[in-house]
Amino acid sequence: MRATLMHRAGDVRIENVPDSVIKHPTDALVRVTASCICGSDLWPYASMSPDGGPARMGHEFIGVVEDTGREVTTVKRGDLVVAPFAVSDGTCGFCREGLHTSCAHAQAGFWGHDVPDEGGQAEAVRVPLADGTLVKLPVAADSALVPSLLTLSDVFGTGHHAAVAGGVNARTRVAVIGDGAVGLLAVLSAKRLGAEQIILMGRHKARTDLGREFGATDVVVTRGEEGITQIRELTGGHGTHVVLECVGTMPAYEQAFGAVRPGGTISRVGVPQYEAAPIGFASLFRHNIRLAGGPAPVRAYIEELMPDILNGTVEPGKVFDTTTDLDGVPDGYRHMADRTSLKVLIKP
Amino acid sequence: MRATLMHRAGDVRIENVPDSVIKHPTDALVRVTASCICGSDLWPYASMSPDGGPARMGHEFIGVVEDTGREVTTVKRGDLVVAPFAVSDGTCGFCREGLHTSCAHAQAGFWGHDVPDEGGQAEAVRVPLADGTLVKLPVAADSALVPSLLTLSDVFGTGHHAAVAGGVNARTRVAVIGDGAVGLLAVLSAKRLGAEQIILMGRHKARTDLGREFGATDVVVTRGEEGITQIRELTGGHGTHVVLECVGTMPAYEQAFGAVRPGGTISRVGVPQYEAAPIGFASLFRHNIRLAGGPAPVRAYIEELMPDILNGTVEPGKVFDTTTDLDGVPDGYRHMADRTSLKVLIKP
Repeated sequence: MRATLMHRAGDVRIENVPDSVIKHPTDALVRVTASCICGSDLWPYASMSPDGGPARMGHEFIGVVEDTGREVTTVKRGDLVVAPFAVSDGTCGFCREGLHTSCAHAQAGFWGHDVPDEGGQAEAVRVPLADGTLVKLPVAADSALVPSLLTLSDVFGTGHHAAVAGGVNARTRVAVIGDGAVGLLAVLSAKRLGAEQIILMGRHKARTDLGREFGATDVVVTRGEEGITQIRELTGGHGTHVVLECVGTMPAYEQAFGAVRPGGTISRVGVPQYEAAPIGFASLFRHNIRLAGGPAPVRAYIEELMPDILNGTVEPGKVFDTTTDLDGVPDGYRHMADRTSLKVLIKP
Repeated sequence: MRATLMHRAGDVRIENVPDSVIKHPTDALVRVTASCICGSDLWPYASMSPDGGPARMGHEFIGVVEDTGREVTTVKRGDLVVAPFAVSDGTCGFCREGLHTSCAHAQAGFWGHDVPDEGGQAEAVRVPLADGTLVKLPVAADSALVPSLLTLSDVFGTGHHAAVAGGVNARTRVAVIGDGAVGLLAVLSAKRLGAEQIILMGRHKARTDLGREFGATDVVVTRGEEGITQIRELTGGHGTHVVLECVGTMPAYEQAFGAVRPGGTISRVGVPQYEAAPIGFASLFRHNIRLAGGPAPVRAYIEELMPDILNGTVEPGKVFDTTTDLDGVPDGYRHMADRTSLKVLIKP
């Protein structure tokens, strides 16, 4: 079968790989019908050393179940399913608390890292712990809702997690840092949770326009001290109750603690490209700023978010501005890296 | 009048200073009847450079109102009052939200820093924003409850804040790092909020014994990796839901993120002696660890905590193991620094 492999920074290829097959009785084999490229795929695309690859890519997909191990009970051959970006058993203590990304099962973890021989940017995927991981979709594989339903695998659930972990509610003013797909869906999520003011920080007009459509009340195009000053001017001088940091770089984090209100929360969902960062008296401590967030347990949110997609209340699939087949994936990476594509949908 | 001045690290003196007097119509003048030395006073005692001093010391006191400015309405001459370690107006947006330590009033802030000419380790204090800051006590100045009521000015409220900011409740397992007065009162506070397991990390037996009396279910005397391993063994392998970090050093913070459970919270009330610290994928992000805490808005907690002291449910004043007059204050600093005193009560 054909799959996407990253050999090193800037070098993504479509190659023939051994067919994915059932290995464990809890596995399902899924024929991928829709997949995509993630903003987080751009980190290795920018920096992977040659000895880091070749790595199988892709952790967001929808597909049709082709086969199941003998212990799988919740999905069956022919079902259309969506897979979250983390594999989880759905039964351990962490899954029961809704923290599926910390599932204690030995086979749980992230595509690529913990399931190194599988990836969503491919013709098929072996899905471990299928009962815990996969969710059946009540539509056909060619439904017009597929792009929006595909965002349940990562970006919509991640934007929602940012807002939930940040404690967004109807009384909160929110700043969203980053106009990528996650940032825009953090805007949509904050709006969905009723935030009274949503300030989107981004400088790419087509994207911030979509952010306004998703619910942003203000857009700040400046960065650094100037951007922080603008946030303060828009919030009566004190900053926002919640900052959703959807980038992961140090400047984005600095922006976050500059823009947050005393007693407020910085919620991070952009994978941090740093380990140490300011959290002492001058940055977080003095004014009781809280830090929250992490990899979104998107599996926990699918049942809550899906109805809003099915009934048309939200259309998160609008973040896809490009569609390609597998052959177009290397170009898709290039276009997302140079920001000519916001997010690329793959139809293998 | 006589007051405590720190001239440099290790050099604390009792000296004559100009009498405190009313300066603003919102001030009160308080004759101090009980004060104390704080663990946080030990940071400058260990490190203050000669050009940092002389600094007036003390931010925890009980006293009798001697005079009030013409706008003060809630306390009057003869009242016994307790002062929190932060001055606040009680009326701004932050005070109304219970975050008095971020009061927006121009005269608000911390004794010593924002009110540089006054300190609690003295015969008298001018208290700015008296209506917002002071709380009347329903006992006499010689009441046996004074030591416990004095802890409302800082250490009890700070331990309580650690527990509240960490989200401690009846379902949480808690680790407390530090066997100083704040750590021990964080134990008491976690117990008061119903925590099912409270593991105190400390190695000073007299203190950890008091910790057990306050509600600690376990004591861990080891530190570093060994201490983290013990916490994990005591919690079924995953660590505690909440870690109350009551020290402020980098090793204490590292201990905290080693001991906290996925999805859990590190709540810091020890003043951080670092600015940058690990918060990336490997430390906080991977498992959605939350970071909370800061200077405790103890003013917000006095009305809630005082009844438990008055009715004898709790006796936080047990953290005082030494009592002295003003002349004994320099020795008090020495004994707290070398850990022969846990906390020193001052009767000026």
